[in-house]
Amino acid sequence: MDRENRVSITVIRRLPKYYRYLGDLIRKGINRISSQELSKLTGFTASQIRQDLNNFGGFGQQGYGYNVEELHSQLGKILGLDKTYNTVIAGAGNLGQAVANYKGFEEAGFKVLAMFDKNPKFIGLKIRDIEIKDVDEMEDFIKENDVEIGIITTPKESAQDIADIYIKSGIKGIWNFAPADLKVDDDVVIENVHLNESLFTLSYFLNNKQDYVRG
Amino acid sequence: MDRENRVSITVIRRLPKYYRYLGDLIRKGINRISSQELSKLTGFTASQIRQDLNNFGGFGQQGYGYNVEELHSQLGKILGLDKTYNTVIAGAGNLGQAVANYKGFEEAGFKVLAMFDKNPKFIGLKIRDIEIKDVDEMEDFIKENDVEIGIITTPKESAQDIADIYIKSGIKGIWNFAPADLKVDDDVVIENVHLNESLFTLSYFLNNKQDYVRG
Repeated sequence: MDRENRVSITVIRRLPKYYRYLGDLIRKGINRISSQELSKLTGFTASQIRQDLNNFGGFGQQGYGYNVEELHSQLGKILGLDKTYNTVIAGAGNLGQAVANYKGFEEAGFKVLAMFDKNPKFIGLKIRDIEIKDVDEMEDFIKENDVEIGIITTPKESAQDIADIYIKSGIKGIWNFAPADLKVDDDVVIENVHLNESLFTLSYFLNNKQDYVRG
Repeated sequence: MDRENRVSITVIRRLPKYYRYLGDLIRKGINRISSQELSKLTGFTASQIRQDLNNFGGFGQQGYGYNVEELHSQLGKILGLDKTYNTVIAGAGNLGQAVANYKGFEEAGFKVLAMFDKNPKFIGLKIRDIEIKDVDEMEDFIKENDVEIGIITTPKESAQDIADIYIKSGIKGIWNFAPADLKVDDDVVIENVHLNESLFTLSYFLNNKQDYVRG
């Protein structure tokens, strides 16, 4: 793959969507799809789809389109979904429990090994088969269990402390739900889910429908 | 405001972040900020910030920068945060409860009037002071209570049915957490929070750090 230039973040953010649609097509028994048909499904234009996928070496054939299973598997590899990841969750409140309960993550290869909280009322409880442990044990647990992704579902105030423990323990990927921008080393990747920003975007579009483009 | 052209979605998605940072500055007692200083805070370049804000009529003054409180209040208006919104949540599982419990939404003007579920074990319970009602009562409730935003935290399989009820009841804004792309009328605005897509983006960057740009 020729990857001299960085792939733009907007392109990358579309890949999981392609991946999801292709998975749906496989479940429906569809083996082959044109960029035009993919366009109808995803709402992106056919030329955008071709351009997006060209960033990663193409995969399509003129006049044939894309082999669904092959493209799905290639995108899966690009997204790193051909591996499994050990994860932990810091913050055992509703949001942490919602993440722990979501079986789709485990099916995609993200295994939650443990949850951590400082609140004694949570410690010792289990969500599915995932134990909630004392946050004081977190650093050792991460080091001993080869944890690669740390999830933060604590309140804003604790988020940086948790991130610091994650990094000290060797974690390189943080999935952050706290409404805070975390300061981390350059080699640590953060993906934020900022729910208030999403809600405010909705209210923007409710008030400015002329700017709204579905997709 | 000259708004002949649509403002791009990437610009719009940055507005809530500016809004959050400006709120933090106000709490710290800072009244004035340059685009350079805003750049350090947000990670966007100063020229991008000026360009972004120009879309909405400017607000900055050469040599002075931005008046923090004024810009915060203007952005708040643009985002529709100078109003309040009645909302309901369909799906009373962990994720629905997490959204209902999040006081920040209410402080920003989004009031959850009720939650709905079809599971009898939830019906009649309360999250804070928010009652969980039978989903069969949802349509009437929405019509009687001037609900503007419908939140979906159900499993994927029920999401379209819920969206259909929302639309039938007159709701024009849907905040959807289910991993499904909903089909709705053109005058209905949907904001999706697709958690699996966010997680897959994280795993992409973990595996392709050269593409990662913090911000």
